[in-house]
Amino acid sequence: MLQSFVPVSPDSHFPLQNLPFGIFSTDSNPQPRVGVAIGDQILDLLVIAQAGLLDSHVSALTHPADVFGQSTLNAFMALGRPVWRATRTRLQTLLSNVSNELQGRPAAFLAKALVPQRTARMHLPARIGDYTDFYASREHATNVGIMFRGKDNALMPNWLHLPVGYHGRASSIVVSGTPLTRPNGQRAAATKGEPPVFGPSTRLDFELEMAFLVGTPNRLGQPVPIDQAEDHIFGVVLMNDWSARDIQSWEYVPLGPFLGKSFGTTISPWVVTLDALAPFRAPLPAQDEPRPLPYLRGTHDGNYDVQLNVSMKAADQADYHSICHSNLKYLYWSFAQQLAHHTVNGCNLNPGDLCGTGTISGPTEDSYGSLLELSWAGQKEVALGPDTKRKFIQDGDSVLMTGYCQADGYRVGFGDCEGTIKPALDLKL
Amino acid sequence: MLQSFVPVSPDSHFPLQNLPFGIFSTDSNPQPRVGVAIGDQILDLLVIAQAGLLDSHVSALTHPADVFGQSTLNAFMALGRPVWRATRTRLQTLLSNVSNELQGRPAAFLAKALVPQRTARMHLPARIGDYTDFYASREHATNVGIMFRGKDNALMPNWLHLPVGYHGRASSIVVSGTPLTRPNGQRAAATKGEPPVFGPSTRLDFELEMAFLVGTPNRLGQPVPIDQAEDHIFGVVLMNDWSARDIQSWEYVPLGPFLGKSFGTTISPWVVTLDALAPFRAPLPAQDEPRPLPYLRGTHDGNYDVQLNVSMKAADQADYHSICHSNLKYLYWSFAQQLAHHTVNGCNLNPGDLCGTGTISGPTEDSYGSLLELSWAGQKEVALGPDTKRKFIQDGDSVLMTGYCQADGYRVGFGDCEGTIKPALDLKL
Repeated sequence: MLQSFVPVSPDSHFPLQNLPFGIFSTDSNPQPRVGVAIGDQILDLLVIAQAGLLDSHVSALTHPADVFGQSTLNAFMALGRPVWRATRTRLQTLLSNVSNELQGRPAAFLAKALVPQRTARMHLPARIGDYTDFYASREHATNVGIMFRGKDNALMPNWLHLPVGYHGRASSIVVSGTPLTRPNGQRAAATKGEPPVFGPSTRLDFELEMAFLVGTPNRLGQPVPIDQAEDHIFGVVLMNDWSARDIQSWEYVPLGPFLGKSFGTTISPWVVTLDALAPFRAPLPAQDEPRPLPYLRGTHDGNYDVQLNVSMKAADQADYHSICHSNLKYLYWSFAQQLAHHTVNGCNLNPGDLCGTGTISGPTEDSYGSLLELSWAGQKEVALGPDTKRKFIQDGDSVLMTGYCQADGYRVGFGDCEGTIKPALDLKL
Repeated sequence: MLQSFVPVSPDSHFPLQNLPFGIFSTDSNPQPRVGVAIGDQILDLLVIAQAGLLDSHVSALTHPADVFGQSTLNAFMALGRPVWRATRTRLQTLLSNVSNELQGRPAAFLAKALVPQRTARMHLPARIGDYTDFYASREHATNVGIMFRGKDNALMPNWLHLPVGYHGRASSIVVSGTPLTRPNGQRAAATKGEPPVFGPSTRLDFELEMAFLVGTPNRLGQPVPIDQAEDHIFGVVLMNDWSARDIQSWEYVPLGPFLGKSFGTTISPWVVTLDALAPFRAPLPAQDEPRPLPYLRGTHDGNYDVQLNVSMKAADQADYHSICHSNLKYLYWSFAQQLAHHTVNGCNLNPGDLCGTGTISGPTEDSYGSLLELSWAGQKEVALGPDTKRKFIQDGDSVLMTGYCQADGYRVGFGDCEGTIKPALDLKL
C-alpha cells in the first residue's frame, strides 16, 4: 500500500490516498492559502509550488501564486479536472515514502512546507457564488412527508421523477467551528387563526448533508450531459444545514424555505476530490419504478459509500454522544443526476458553487439525519448520555458531523463539521 | 429647476435629478468602469476622479481607481450611504449649468469624460452574491392564488404577516439586451398520473419586477432594524423574472421555484439611488388588518411612485406594443420591510446582493405584471397590435420593461430592461 513519509495513523481521515484541498492560515503567516491535509499536517502548496516542485509536472500551473496564494480554491477549481488530477497525482508522489524529492529536502524547508493542523486556522474553502440544496434522500423525504401529510401521500408526485432542489443562501455559509446564533422569527400561533408569534426559534434542528463544489463551469444556456457531470465536480464536503423548523413551517408556503435556513449553514473545511472517492463507488437504488427521463440516466453513474455520523454535546458535557449513523450511499439521486438536472434548463454553474444533497437519512431509526426525524417531530426524546435528552437543539449545544470511506487499512475521510448554538439576541420587540 | 450643461430632453430618464450609477465600456476602452447617466451621455467617473474633481469633496475616495476603475459597483456600494450621497451631490454640481468646473474644461477633456450612451456597452452593475425574490404584491399573490386555489383561499395564512420571499439563482442574472434561450425541462403530463413530459417550455412568461441592490452589509447574526433598512440599500433597478410556468408548477412543491426561473433573469443596467427616488415617496397600504409585528413597522417607511410599463414585440414586428401599466406604489410590502424581514433571523446581506419585489400587479386587468395574469392562465389572448396575439411568449418575442417617476418638467427614470427569447436547444432526448 502507498504510504507517506509523513506519519498517518490507520484511523486518520487524511492518508496519502485522500489529499483533500483546503484554505488555511497560521499565526506566523496570516495570509489564507491553499494546502492539502496529510495525516495531522498540512502541506502548504504555495511553498511547494514556489520551490518549483509542481509546475514542471502540471503544465497549467505556470503562475502558481495566482492559484495557491489565493484565499479561496476558486482559481484552482476553474483549471479543470485534468489539472486537479495531475496536481493530486504529483502530490502523492512528493509525499510518498519511496520518493526523496520532498522528503530529502533540508529540515528548514520541510518545517516551512508542512504545518501542523493544530496550529492552523481553517477558512471557507471557496467563494460560494450560488448554493443549491437538493432533497435527494427518499427516506428523509418520506419521513417528512408522513409527518406532514400522512403515509398515503408521503412523497410528492414529482419526487421520483426529478431531484427536487431549491436555491439556498450562500452568504451565511460558514466553516466548521464557527458559532451560530439561534434565530429570531415568526412562527404560527398555537391556536389556528391567531396571529403569529415572534421570538427565538423553539425547534432548532440540524440536517446531516454532504455537498459538492462545482469546479468546471458551464455557460448559460448550455446543459451538462449526465455522463460529463462528474467532470464538473471538484470535490465534496460535509454540511450541516441548520434549520429552524417552526420558522420554516410558517413561512415556506408557497415559495420554499427562507429564514428558517438562512441564519447559517456549516461546511467542513477539507474538500475531498472525486478522484479520492472513486474507489468507494456504490450502486444507485434501482430507479425503475418509475424510470427517470433519459437526461437523468447515466452510463457510469453511482453513489459513494461514505459512513456518516452525527453526535451532540450539551454545554455542560465534556464528550460528544453519537445519535445517528447514516451513509451517503442511501441517496436516491446521485451527484451526477443533481448536476445534470440543475443545468438541463441552461442554468450556469460556476467554480465554487455548492450543491447540498439534502438530509441523508437511512432506512433505520438510528440512521435518520435530523432531530425532526430522530424525535419524530418532538414526540420522543433523543439521549445524549444517561442524564441529557433532546427533542430539538438547546442553547450551548454543539453538533459534530463526521464521515469517511473505509478501505483495507486506511480511511478516506472528511474531518469534522462542527458548530455550537449561541442564545438568540434579545430584540426587545 | 436645476439644469445640466449636458442637454437633457424633458422625457429623458436621466436628468440632473437622477444620476444613476452603472458599469460601461467602449470600443476605444474595453475596460468596464463606473459611470453615471446624464441625458444621452455617460459621465466616466474614473476620468472625473483621476482629474481630481471628486476626492477633495468626497474624503472616502482616496483611491478612486480602486472604486471607479472596477468592473462592478461593489466597491463603491461598500463605502456606505454618506459616500454615495456626497458623490451624487458633487456630481450634480459638476454637471450643472451654473458651475464652470467641468463645463469649462478643454473640449478634449470633455470628449473623454462624456461618452455617448449609443457608443457604450452596458454590463451588469454588480457582482451579485445572493439574489432574493420577494412576493410583495397583494394583487399578484391574490391573482395567482385564485387561479391555483380558488377565491376563498387565494392568500396563504402567512401572506399578510410577512413579506414572503425565496432565494433565487444569482449566476443567471443578465443585463438588459442579453438574449436568453427557452429552457427545456420536465412538465406534468396532460393526464393525471401519467409520467412527466420533457421538452421546451410551452408556457414561458415574464414577470414585471423591481429590485434593490444592497450597499451597506450587516454581519451574520445582526438584524437590521426597519428604520435603518433604507440606509443599507444602494439603489433600484428594473427586473424581468422570466418564468417557465409549466416547469415551475411541476417542480415547485414543496421547496419552491427552481429550474422554472434559473434559466435567466434580466435587470436594467442603471442603478437609481434612493436619494434620487426620495421626492417620489408614496404611502404604503393601510396594513391594519392584520397589523404587522413591530419589527416590520417603520416610523418613516413607504413605497415609491414609479410608473411601470411592459411592452412586447414579435420577431416579425418592428415596434413594441404596450400590454401592461403598473406602479411600484401598488406593493403591499416596502423595500424597508423586505430588508428588515430578510435580516431578522441574523441573515447577512452583502454589497451587491439583489432583492426583487416579485411581480408588481395593480388593481385593474391592464396592470397585471405577467402573461399568466394578463391571459388568466391562457384562457384569453393578449393583443400585440392588430394581427398578433399571445397567451405566453413565443420564440423570437422581445419583452421591454420601462419605468420612471414623473415630476413637474422632468422624469427620474430607469431606462430599459429588455430581452429576446431564442428557440430551445434540441437536446435529442
